[in-house]
Amino acid sequence: MNAPQDQQAFRLVGTSPIRPDGVEKVTGKAVYGPDFTMAGMLHGAILRSPHPHARIRGINTRKAEALPGVKAVMTGKDFPEVEGEVAGGEGGAANLGHIARNCMAREKALYDGHAVAAVAATSKLIAEQALALIEVDYEVLPHVIEAAEALAPDAPLLHDDVFTKGLEETPERPSNLSMRFVIDRGDPDAALAGAAIVVSGSYSTQPVHQGYIEPHAAVASWNGDGQAQIWSSSQGHFMVRQTTANLLGMNLADLRVTPLEIGGGFGGKTAIYLEPVALLLSRKAGRPVRIAMRREDVFRATGPAPGSEIEIKLGTDAEGTLVGAVMEFRNRAGAFPGGDVSLSAMMALAHYRCDNVRITGWEVLVNTPSTAAYRAPGAPQTVFAVECCLDEIAQRLGMDPLDLRLKNAARAGDPGVFGMPLGEVGYAECLEAAKAHPHYSAPLGPNQGRGIAGGNWMNYGGPSTASVSLAEDGTVLVATGSPDIGGSRASMAIIAAETLGIPYENVRVTVADTASLGPSMLTGGSRVTFATGKAVIDACEQVIETLKQRAAAMFGATPQEIEWRDGAAFCTAEGKSDQKATLAELAAKADHSGGPIAKMVGTFVPGHLPGSGVHICDTEVDPETGNVSVVRYTVVQDVGRAIHADYCEGQLQGGAAQGIGWALNEAYVFGPSGKMDNAGFLDYRMPVASDLPMIDTVMVEVPNPNHPFGVKGVGETPIVPPLGAVANAVSRATGVRMYDLPLTPDRIRATLQAAQ
Amino acid sequence: MNAPQDQQAFRLVGTSPIRPDGVEKVTGKAVYGPDFTMAGMLHGAILRSPHPHARIRGINTRKAEALPGVKAVMTGKDFPEVEGEVAGGEGGAANLGHIARNCMAREKALYDGHAVAAVAATSKLIAEQALALIEVDYEVLPHVIEAAEALAPDAPLLHDDVFTKGLEETPERPSNLSMRFVIDRGDPDAALAGAAIVVSGSYSTQPVHQGYIEPHAAVASWNGDGQAQIWSSSQGHFMVRQTTANLLGMNLADLRVTPLEIGGGFGGKTAIYLEPVALLLSRKAGRPVRIAMRREDVFRATGPAPGSEIEIKLGTDAEGTLVGAVMEFRNRAGAFPGGDVSLSAMMALAHYRCDNVRITGWEVLVNTPSTAAYRAPGAPQTVFAVECCLDEIAQRLGMDPLDLRLKNAARAGDPGVFGMPLGEVGYAECLEAAKAHPHYSAPLGPNQGRGIAGGNWMNYGGPSTASVSLAEDGTVLVATGSPDIGGSRASMAIIAAETLGIPYENVRVTVADTASLGPSMLTGGSRVTFATGKAVIDACEQVIETLKQRAAAMFGATPQEIEWRDGAAFCTAEGKSDQKATLAELAAKADHSGGPIAKMVGTFVPGHLPGSGVHICDTEVDPETGNVSVVRYTVVQDVGRAIHADYCEGQLQGGAAQGIGWALNEAYVFGPSGKMDNAGFLDYRMPVASDLPMIDTVMVEVPNPNHPFGVKGVGETPIVPPLGAVANAVSRATGVRMYDLPLTPDRIRATLQAAQ
Repeated sequence: MNAPQDQQAFRLVGTSPIRPDGVEKVTGKAVYGPDFTMAGMLHGAILRSPHPHARIRGINTRKAEALPGVKAVMTGKDFPEVEGEVAGGEGGAANLGHIARNCMAREKALYDGHAVAAVAATSKLIAEQALALIEVDYEVLPHVIEAAEALAPDAPLLHDDVFTKGLEETPERPSNLSMRFVIDRGDPDAALAGAAIVVSGSYSTQPVHQGYIEPHAAVASWNGDGQAQIWSSSQGHFMVRQTTANLLGMNLADLRVTPLEIGGGFGGKTAIYLEPVALLLSRKAGRPVRIAMRREDVFRATGPAPGSEIEIKLGTDAEGTLVGAVMEFRNRAGAFPGGDVSLSAMMALAHYRCDNVRITGWEVLVNTPSTAAYRAPGAPQTVFAVECCLDEIAQRLGMDPLDLRLKNAARAGDPGVFGMPLGEVGYAECLEAAKAHPHYSAPLGPNQGRGIAGGNWMNYGGPSTASVSLAEDGTVLVATGSPDIGGSRASMAIIAAETLGIPYENVRVTVADTASLGPSMLTGGSRVTFATGKAVIDACEQVIETLKQRAAAMFGATPQEIEWRDGAAFCTAEGKSDQKATLAELAAKADHSGGPIAKMVGTFVPGHLPGSGVHICDTEVDPETGNVSVVRYTVVQDVGRAIHADYCEGQLQGGAAQGIGWALNEAYVFGPSGKMDNAGFLDYRMPVASDLPMIDTVMVEVPNPNHPFGVKGVGETPIVPPLGAVANAVSRATGVRMYDLPLTPDRIRATLQAAQ
Repeated sequence: MNAPQDQQAFRLVGTSPIRPDGVEKVTGKAVYGPDFTMAGMLHGAILRSPHPHARIRGINTRKAEALPGVKAVMTGKDFPEVEGEVAGGEGGAANLGHIARNCMAREKALYDGHAVAAVAATSKLIAEQALALIEVDYEVLPHVIEAAEALAPDAPLLHDDVFTKGLEETPERPSNLSMRFVIDRGDPDAALAGAAIVVSGSYSTQPVHQGYIEPHAAVASWNGDGQAQIWSSSQGHFMVRQTTANLLGMNLADLRVTPLEIGGGFGGKTAIYLEPVALLLSRKAGRPVRIAMRREDVFRATGPAPGSEIEIKLGTDAEGTLVGAVMEFRNRAGAFPGGDVSLSAMMALAHYRCDNVRITGWEVLVNTPSTAAYRAPGAPQTVFAVECCLDEIAQRLGMDPLDLRLKNAARAGDPGVFGMPLGEVGYAECLEAAKAHPHYSAPLGPNQGRGIAGGNWMNYGGPSTASVSLAEDGTVLVATGSPDIGGSRASMAIIAAETLGIPYENVRVTVADTASLGPSMLTGGSRVTFATGKAVIDACEQVIETLKQRAAAMFGATPQEIEWRDGAAFCTAEGKSDQKATLAELAAKADHSGGPIAKMVGTFVPGHLPGSGVHICDTEVDPETGNVSVVRYTVVQDVGRAIHADYCEGQLQGGAAQGIGWALNEAYVFGPSGKMDNAGFLDYRMPVASDLPMIDTVMVEVPNPNHPFGVKGVGETPIVPPLGAVANAVSRATGVRMYDLPLTPDRIRATLQAAQ
């Protein structure tokens, strides 16, 4: 480990102090999206299309408007016509016209559950009664759910203004193929032709949901002069401000967005659905409006991760060195462009060195909800295929699967996806740690199999703003623009307290609203601890500089003669080395030594590095029922530097649990009518605590040399390996390779029977 | 006018753009103290003492606690014992034990309406029913309302731990005289002995209320881990944080205070009453609690301005030059120390040059509500006596009263109250402007008289924090910690837009909560436009520096080669003088040119200067009824530099209106039982629009050389002269000098009859 700071030097980094927002959350005091309320607030409800594909010939809202208690009714026509793109999150639509039409259908309803009208009324009951009075004149159109259907020659077209992007030639006709993305390095065809071993396969994954507990909710209040406020739970209130203001043609400063607590996001709250609808209703009604989704709405009308079909061919030499790879995959984006295709392509082989690669990704539009980011968006699908293929190669070579990966692991200095040299990726270190882990050598029982898989996530840095200010008693307020999803209040407090040299409990962290702080990119990309943490460090350093100046003036010394350590200014000037002032003492004197001490830093943080992981999974497959039990699971991951150890560990466990659900149980099920058949947590089967063993974790620390504390992103990588790890474990337990997720009992039984 | 910047150079300063919070306020959307609501919130109610002075032998809350729906009952014993002082506002108590006991009585109830217990329940009705079930065992004690009663040898003592401060010798016994404050310069006795003219008199004023429209209200939520939040309307949420946290022994960072809109303060919301009570109830109940006062509570239990009795003797030479002054006054502080005595003494003669002065102020404790700041706290009372005395001198000398004042006006360089040279006080300029005003030479009708009076307020600077951040579209967010009472969102937006060179509408100003910004002193002392405005300018200048750096990097120039004007960076480097980038262009590129642009500045702003004023008042006195009509009124004031012209004018008009009410109508009336007899706006007679003529204003601008825009404080000075101006006008209309306020018809009739 080449730590930029010796671990010994840390006082708080790497510990696990109590979460400052924990008590508030477990006692029900925290205000989440649906909890926020205002005097005079109206209740909104949304009418949703019962058809997966239908032209909207007209909407008659008169009866609804006449219902006593109804204060506003709106349709897609209330959205202004806007053009251009908005800087999006990790995935999802960027075209403003598409975002507006996803928030509320205009010319056509494009999926079952697509919003077509909305009502604001004095009670939720009245609002829902009013929905039943809205008459929509639909011309029902044929729909497509699967990629093959969408690409059939006579397939109905979702959009007549979407042309395939990324082709050599500009297409002449609109298409349900909205994008092609290609990575092409070396000569993969020749390499595969000369390879000792070539393994190929057709893999598939289904759309899966992020499964956050809290449904989307927003309160909006439009002012008579065109200014407005929104209170909502999201992964980025600056994103909410920018997208909503752009959709409605507002100045950004005229829209104040206040973040509420977020009950899980996992990428699914990087897009907006309700905010502009609530705001337009509020403008019509002249009163604040709250809209909250039901669980069914969340499933039917917010973005899952895209399902994908992946053709893969990998070749190695006789010793297992990867010589060539060709992949082609199709991600189903849902009703609007934005299906993680470029990310799927970039991440597929990012953790391996391979000089001859061609990856072709296609984005297909189908009549299902527009997809959104889901934790390491795009990576799990393609990495699943790669890791299964590698497992098969290891079996063919009779090689330990970790050794095969160690041989091919991408290392610092290797060329990355686009040929640029990689930084300290830490994958080999994880593979070594996995080999050394007792789990890997533990004996297996009957019908059990052990699978391993690797993967990584690029992580991100980007723009963050943070402020640090001293209260009069020397306690410290940190404000950031990053919604706290994974415990960032705790990690930011650790970072600030570590930098300033004061107790953790003396620092309180707030997620500030858009009017009180400069912009920050949303909480996503595993960027917050890295990038927002860096902004906090920078602001603390500025505070320390000011504290040194104040102390110097007090001691009759120069700032250069002041040393800051252990939360105090020590004078090093000759004859004054007994002079000392603590942060609290300097804060108490701040007013009369120059004024309050408060700094705000906006920074675009470069130097992010991927975090790599290896998962070890033991499954037991019931040969009679096809049921799979995960009996042991270990996550090994390079976390760069764990700031809050427990929350790092929690990220590793949570990502693994979600990935296991993706592998074993979860899928959107659409019947022939194109309606989602399992729009609820009873039918959409996510793993619960009793489904899983305790997930063991090993945090490898290969510090990021570009960050003062060595931080890398942590939250997304752990969802990447489980699909392959579980499938490999099942394949090894059954002796039959598994290509299609989820590995439900019926499917396994069918696969086993077919193999016999 | 020695403007630091030529008025011509200003684009926005001095204009009157639309108030950014105006529509919100006139349409009822703005959230004031009593409007704020939360899910699960309880309703608080306070039991108040029916006795002006009583020992509390015990409080039995069991029956109240047993009432269904009651979730918490508290008494003064729930407050922790705390010691020490808190930095107060402009006036009012600073001793923590006193503040706690004013919020809720402990050993004794000290005035009619003093809080003795509080209840939180699921409805306001239940809370009020529960109050009736609380049994308080009072030992009723004799009470004192007037100073003479409080100082009688056998007077009941309010506190046995209050000893007179400011005496030469440490007093041995506790006293109702809580403070003496003396100003002593030159040899006033000798000067008066040698004066050509000596005029003396005994003047009195009554306690008067600030008369804000919105009653006090607070919502508090105590968290299980000791952190807490408060939402309240006040003149300073950082003051609320500091005082409440100190009262309850909390770290400041653990208490987040979010300011709500304030419906008037005028000094009366520089103290806290409800916040710690709501917070302790919330701690007991485990749920958020709202308490809102009724109007009666506001009158009975919040602080009015102290009533005062003033003995004065002024002497001049034969030409009217002031040679000596001796004053002694007693301010009635109410139940706890803090009665503006030092301010009354300092302001009495601050607008005149007089080298031989002795002013002795006494603070007297009586069984009435603890007084609080009221617009220029302490000044109106003593200046009233001075200005009446000067009027009498002018009459004796047969001199024009403005000329007399011009002869004696304090000017830049003269010694101030404590002998320090004065800055650009602008009083003479106001007197000249008054002389030149058509009002001053207009003819008077029968039974009419014209009074003039001057006065000033020291104003203040002090600590303020402000942040300025750029949204991605180049609109600008300014956050300050100064609650907007008099239109400061508009003036801060003007200041920022002027500094940055962008349109007014592109700047939005927020009053940020205590977690999102460094500390600011409260909105008071006429300090916000001056001091917070300076912090905004400083933050804008830092933003401009950063914009220049970004532009320089873009142009391939140095920051020194960039000129910022008209909201854009212009390159002055050779051969690149055509290069230009607007703020919006630079903001759009901020992320990738170094990150979001956002700056926070905390500063202690020195260089404040007093603002002087002269008022001209014409009254008509009905000889039969004694009723006084103000028939014409003109305010002339040195505003330094008007930032928002209309709101400056509004301050001048509002201060005059309040001063006229103080002079003519307003007074706390206590019956023999010691209860306030007029605790409501029907009986406490403030002037309404139909009582007053349109108040004319003349804004003289003698810019403050210590401020970039020349700003002085504006808001408090205009309440200082009216008491004298009205009394002088009535005296001149009737030919009889008036010594006692308010000049109610019955009192005038009695005075006139006695004089006949």
